Amino acid sequence: MDLTHFKDGRPHMVDVTQKPPTVRTATAEAYVRLTPEALAALKAGGVGKGDPLVVAQLAGIMGAKRTADLIPLCHPLPLTGVEVRLELQEDQARVRVEATVRTKAETGVEMEALTACAVAALTVYDMLKAASKGLEITDLRLLHKAGGKSGEWRR
Amino acid sequence: MDLTHFKDGRPHMVDVTQKPPTVRTATAEAYVRLTPEALAALKAGGVGKGDPLVVAQLAGIMGAKRTADLIPLCHPLPLTGVEVRLELQEDQARVRVEATVRTKAETGVEMEALTACAVAALTVYDMLKAASKGLEITDLRLLHKAGGKSGEWRR
Amino acid sequence: MDLTHFKDGRPHMVDVTQKPPTVRTATAEAYVRLTPEALAALKAGGVGKGDPLVVAQLAGIMGAKRTADLIPLCHPLPLTGVEVRLELQEDQARVRVEATVRTKAETGVEMEALTACAVAALTVYDMLKAASKGLEITDLRLLHKAGGKSGEWRR
Amino acid sequence: MDLTHFKDGRPHMVDVTQKPPTVRTATAEAYVRLTPEALAALKAGGVGKGDPLVVAQLAGIMGAKRTADLIPLCHPLPLTGVEVRLELQEDQARVRVEATVRTKAETGVEMEALTACAVAALTVYDMLKAASKGLEITDLRLLHKAGGKSGEWRR
Amino acid sequence: MDLTHFKDGRPHMVDVTQKPPTVRTATAEAYVRLTPEALAALKAGGVGKGDPLVVAQLAGIMGAKRTADLIPLCHPLPLTGVEVRLELQEDQARVRVEATVRTKAETGVEMEALTACAVAALTVYDMLKAASKGLEITDLRLLHKAGGKSGEWRR
Amino acid sequence: MDLTHFKDGRPHMVDVTQKPPTVRTATAEAYVRLTPEALAALKAGGVGKGDPLVVAQLAGIMGAKRTADLIPLCHPLPLTGVEVRLELQEDQARVRVEATVRTKAETGVEMEALTACAVAALTVYDMLKAASKGLEITDLRLLHKAGGKSGEWRR
Repeated sequence: MDLTHFKDGRPHMVDVTQKPPTVRTATAEAYVRLTPEALAALKAGGVGKGDPLVVAQLAGIMGAKRTADLIPLCHPLPLTGVEVRLELQEDQARVRVEATVRTKAETGVEMEALTACAVAALTVYDMLKAASKGLEITDLRLLHKAGGKSGEWRR
Repeated sequence: MDLTHFKDGRPHMVDVTQKPPTVRTATAEAYVRLTPEALAALKAGGVGKGDPLVVAQLAGIMGAKRTADLIPLCHPLPLTGVEVRLELQEDQARVRVEATVRTKAETGVEMEALTACAVAALTVYDMLKAASKGLEITDLRLLHKAGGKSGEWRR
Repeated sequence: MDLTHFKDGRPHMVDVTQKPPTVRTATAEAYVRLTPEALAALKAGGVGKGDPLVVAQLAGIMGAKRTADLIPLCHPLPLTGVEVRLELQEDQARVRVEATVRTKAETGVEMEALTACAVAALTVYDMLKAASKGLEITDLRLLHKAGGKSGEWRR
Repeated sequence: MDLTHFKDGRPHMVDVTQKPPTVRTATAEAYVRLTPEALAALKAGGVGKGDPLVVAQLAGIMGAKRTADLIPLCHPLPLTGVEVRLELQEDQARVRVEATVRTKAETGVEMEALTACAVAALTVYDMLKAASKGLEITDLRLLHKAGGKSGEWRR
Repeated sequence: MDLTHFKDGRPHMVDVTQKPPTVRTATAEAYVRLTPEALAALKAGGVGKGDPLVVAQLAGIMGAKRTADLIPLCHPLPLTGVEVRLELQEDQARVRVEATVRTKAETGVEMEALTACAVAALTVYDMLKAASKGLEITDLRLLHKAGGKSGEWRR
Repeated sequence: MDLTHFKDGRPHMVDVTQKPPTVRTATAEAYVRLTPEALAALKAGGVGKGDPLVVAQLAGIMGAKRTADLIPLCHPLPLTGVEVRLELQEDQARVRVEATVRTKAETGVEMEALTACAVAALTVYDMLKAASKGLEITDLRLLHKAGGKSGEWRR
């Protein structure tokens, strides 16, 4: 198994010029594990119209658009749809993040979905860090992708 | 416990104008859990001079500098030092990422250290995803911070 | 009438994956109302080859390219043409800005035309603010759009 | 009256190296004039937790941080506080935007406050444009600045 | 011969809306002339896995993606492949940089190939400047382009 | 001579936290060698108020502000002054670019001055490439720096 991002031992942006553009979707998830202090702060803050989870959701959507700026070998892609959802799972003291990204392009949007989740989760951390620095982001992973030659993949 | 990033129920960038600039450091970590296919690909790719972990390391350093662009309520800070290390822990089939960020500013660099780890870990995923899509990023968390009124914190 | 940018009460980037790309254009305008001091400074500065209006014009063109970075739910689009014009309307003590943006995409470029006008007008303010801080930007609005399912629209 | 942004007839970024950093604040405002359709859509959309005005507010805060990227001759400044407020003034069929920006620097933050207002207002337009394209952004202007050699200014 | 980037004496982003997207490639080169001190430092630094030329190579790839942000009248293009190579030509005391960029678009990628070379060469300078400030970047030029109405061009 | 940007064989952003901020300046230059066709086009285009050299000058100023985004191991610095000058040296069929950058910081601005020159020169190329693709950018180099522990340096 070779690393596709390397050619003659050097990193490059894989040439996808000859691939036909097809519809692509990818869905990823992540979890933010809350401490009791963070959970209390989030619940207290979540009642107004400035819900911290909406801040994180927007950060995730905007983060998806910055993927090619952040990940050195990612292709810049014209995204055609981004959804990010955050849900407080209070009984498990965690926030779940899920992102779905769509495009019509020569290559897939897995990195965009993962980046959206990462940025949204980091934003949750940022807003709760005054209450507790012990939060952890975990299980950031791809759930599903479709489109392209390699077809569908599901965790 | 109030959310410091909210004022009258609305998000804002906290006013730190009157705080004195002090030396700040923060260290964070993250892990990328490898599948057997990804581990094999990483080991095969890691012998040349284009080590995939160097790509991820650079992405992490550059990611630290983009923190305020990504996290909506983060202050833009003039970073004075960034170190990112990646280590393949082969017996545990994972890559460990550690980032330390320094500044002399009115507020801390926890988010910069966490963002550096997240971007480096996402870059590892990007380079190995052709071998396996089942990798997970986990345990993204703060290890240590120092400086500022709240002083030292250690996990 | 629902807000298209919201789904189940949460903001998202609208899914346009299935829409066919078509030629799109949008034209917007804005005005910068000058004080007597600003008008005098602009006229004095406008004779050399570093005409302040050229600075603003370039800022507008570059601003159009940053639209998806600035407006959270905007789609990133591959613009195929941007024109920005600024004209000093001395008898009315104002500068008129007009921007036309073109693309071949699944969604329109109204926001790009408006953003180009806004950035150009802000740049006029920036260059004249040492002469007078009382300038106002006003009447920033869409004049015309064409292309896409909703067809032509004219103010 | 010379244009400070020009030197020998050419634009430049004014040299402020020798000025002492002082506390600076600036407050700006803007209005989005709503059509009846847009007003109805905003009221319908504003009841859930995904309030469109919160989206615009966050865009404004992030926009303030991009000012030096957008306005060619602006100095990059380490902002120490940003507040953006949006208020629906239903009886006047408009949304009012107000932004206050703070820093401790060699030059002022008027452009940052104006840019925050512009981006927030453009985001309101973006979210309501499916309901009505006839909205206008108007009265984008500085209300107050303090700090620096030129001292306080109030409209 | 008119300047295509100017219309009625004002700069604009050329309208390519009606041109058909075709496969485009461009290759550019640049040289970094080393002083003896810089050459020695590069050779000493180049043996570990953190080869300075890999840092520069990645910077070049990422730089290609920022072209439309940097060059005012460039069209934003969805790049489909980027290769950057750096080679120490020890006998001539210089580093050669070569970049090839590909897209399927209405306009060419000459500027992207040149920008990749420039950013990679600047990064070489950055890493060697502690050893010697006397390095020079030279012969930054296009070698080849193909695709589009004007067809192939070779130096 | 070790490479300061490497630590234990890995690239890092050098820690300058403990260095005192001092006034720093750097001046760099570059040349764009014109073909006869490019020279003719530049002279024809240079008579209007949209002088191509002003476009390049602005691109250079904005480029200086993007240095830390482009060069992986550069520190983000709050620039306090940027001047970029372009001059057509007709008898030598070339354009000379010179940039001076100032800051008050822990580290120098050599890279900012060089990046400003590179972006300005690339912009000259972009505007003349329809007339001739054979232009070359050459002699991009530091002329002078002052400030910091290493003191003054002059080519």
